Amino acid sequence: MLKPLGDRVVIELVEAEEKTSSGIVLPGSAQEKPQEGKVIAVGAGALLDNGQRGEMEVKEGDRIIFSKYAGTEVKSDGNEYLILRESDILAVLG
Amino acid sequence: MLKPLGDRVVIELVEAEEKTSSGIVLPGSAQEKPQEGKVIAVGAGALLDNGQRGEMEVKEGDRIIFSKYAGTEVKSDGNEYLILRESDILAVLG
Amino acid sequence: MLKPLGDRVVIELVEAEEKTSSGIVLPGSAQEKPQEGKVIAVGAGALLDNGQRGEMEVKEGDRIIFSKYAGTEVKSDGNEYLILRESDILAVLG
Amino acid sequence: MLKPLGDRVVIELVEAEEKTSSGIVLPGSAQEKPQEGKVIAVGAGALLDNGQRGEMEVKEGDRIIFSKYAGTEVKSDGNEYLILRESDILAVLG
Amino acid sequence: MLKPLGDRVVIELVEAEEKTSSGIVLPGSAQEKPQEGKVIAVGAGALLDNGQRGEMEVKEGDRIIFSKYAGTEVKSDGNEYLILRESDILAVLG
Amino acid sequence: MLKPLGDRVVIELVEAEEKTSSGIVLPGSAQEKPQEGKVIAVGAGALLDNGQRGEMEVKEGDRIIFSKYAGTEVKSDGNEYLILRESDILAVLG
Amino acid sequence: MLKPLGDRVVIELVEAEEKTSSGIVLPGSAQEKPQEGKVIAVGAGALLDNGQRGEMEVKEGDRIIFSKYAGTEVKSDGNEYLILRESDILAVLG
Repeated sequence: MLKPLGDRVVIELVEAEEKTSSGIVLPGSAQEKPQEGKVIAVGAGALLDNGQRGEMEVKEGDRIIFSKYAGTEVKSDGNEYLILRESDILAVLG
Repeated sequence: MLKPLGDRVVIELVEAEEKTSSGIVLPGSAQEKPQEGKVIAVGAGALLDNGQRGEMEVKEGDRIIFSKYAGTEVKSDGNEYLILRESDILAVLG
Repeated sequence: MLKPLGDRVVIELVEAEEKTSSGIVLPGSAQEKPQEGKVIAVGAGALLDNGQRGEMEVKEGDRIIFSKYAGTEVKSDGNEYLILRESDILAVLG
Repeated sequence: MLKPLGDRVVIELVEAEEKTSSGIVLPGSAQEKPQEGKVIAVGAGALLDNGQRGEMEVKEGDRIIFSKYAGTEVKSDGNEYLILRESDILAVLG
Repeated sequence: MLKPLGDRVVIELVEAEEKTSSGIVLPGSAQEKPQEGKVIAVGAGALLDNGQRGEMEVKEGDRIIFSKYAGTEVKSDGNEYLILRESDILAVLG
Repeated sequence: MLKPLGDRVVIELVEAEEKTSSGIVLPGSAQEKPQEGKVIAVGAGALLDNGQRGEMEVKEGDRIIFSKYAGTEVKSDGNEYLILRESDILAVLG
Repeated sequence: MLKPLGDRVVIELVEAEEKTSSGIVLPGSAQEKPQEGKVIAVGAGALLDNGQRGEMEVKEGDRIIFSKYAGTEVKSDGNEYLILRESDILAVLG
């Protein structure tokens, strides 16, 4: 299992077919291409200047939209994950 | 529904025709082109150094002017949204 | 009406003729060209690290000098406005 | 009258002849050329993170040395002023 | 023995063969190539603005994934180590 | 007299001959060439985020080593001074 | 004697022969080449935002590894020293 550090989040990519069925269409953009994913694991939060950790806004199981070129790809046991910072997550699909 | 993270805001673009009827004319500018939008959803606010979140100045339903090249476009259920940071919003039309 | 966000200010440009009558002459500069304007609306102030907002130094009606290439032009009801940050304002004409 | 904002200062340039009589010679430098001026008006001080304003070190009437390419020139009633930040002032001639 | 300073960590690289046996496959990426390592020593933590040190999230013995081009290689007694900052560690394998 | 602002220091250059007699040899470096000087005047200290001023480590009369390309040269009454920030001072010769 | 300022440290370089006898081998790297040194003098610590000084992690006599291109070389009484910031020190050899 992957336990992300700081304000990082481990994401499982949601396939394009799945995206269509949920009615979300994400158009290509020259600047940043959003994508959909599912949160698998959440870090302890960024270290603040007062020594505490900032509360994370996302939790395991959240469906999120993030910037396409953000994060680092990792494969584990046949699954493809993405490790990114919470600041690269644009919104949660509620 | 899209729930934006941090100091992000989900915006519904206001069409050019609508803009003309409200009497607002936004001239093109080489540096940044302002546009009009309507706030659909508001994040919890930016994480501050003391661990609290900064209060957001805009609320759902606000008509706003923002910088044209700011944010990321997202389509959902036939509607086109824009996710941008509150700092990219120039003013609220009161 | 335009309600600027954060430490932004809405400015009405003061025409060159008016400037001459007030005796203020602003020479061109290669680095930044100052201009004169009148404050129409003032934001709530920049969000500080402690969650409070910084007090604004300018108020409605103030005649100010600002850097020429600062801000974003907006037209409303035939009037031309400029939305800029207070940090782009150099001085108040008292 | 010009009331500078934040940590800005309004300076009246001191002519080269005057400089020679006071015995101060300022050699040209490839990096930054210092110049002499007289403080005409002082801002309220920079906005600090705790919401207070930093105390200014210069006061009206001070003779100062500043970096040549700093600030913005302004002419008013036949006088030539310079608006610069206190951080561009190197020293006070005491 | 190597005692890293601040938020630095001393890492022992885990060979590719070992990685395959643990089922972790790390695909090459144009931006940053993650790698696997084992934590040998942990610094006292980054110096915070309040004079205290931030708590480290990793401990000796942790298996971690880090960005490939991060850190500095050091050889000691035939072993190859890498000294990197905790912020270059993406996740702990739990 | 020159009273430096903030964390600035006024330095009198120490000639090369004097350096040799004190046994200090400063080799040329491609990156930054250290030089020796004597502190003539010390500023009140840098303005901190809490509104106070940071304590200066050097005092009048200190012999110091500083980076060669730091600071601004000023001539006064036949003497050549250098105004630099305390952060450009590497060490005090004790 | 050299008394370094702030978070600076005075280092005496440890020769390559000595390094071999201690069993430490430092391979050349395209990015930064680590080197070994001995701490001769330690500054009072970096000035923090609260006006206090950060505690230094190294002390006189420590054997350290640092980045090759960091710091400034100084020669005194036939000895060659290096003045560098503590943040350029990677680890202490314990």
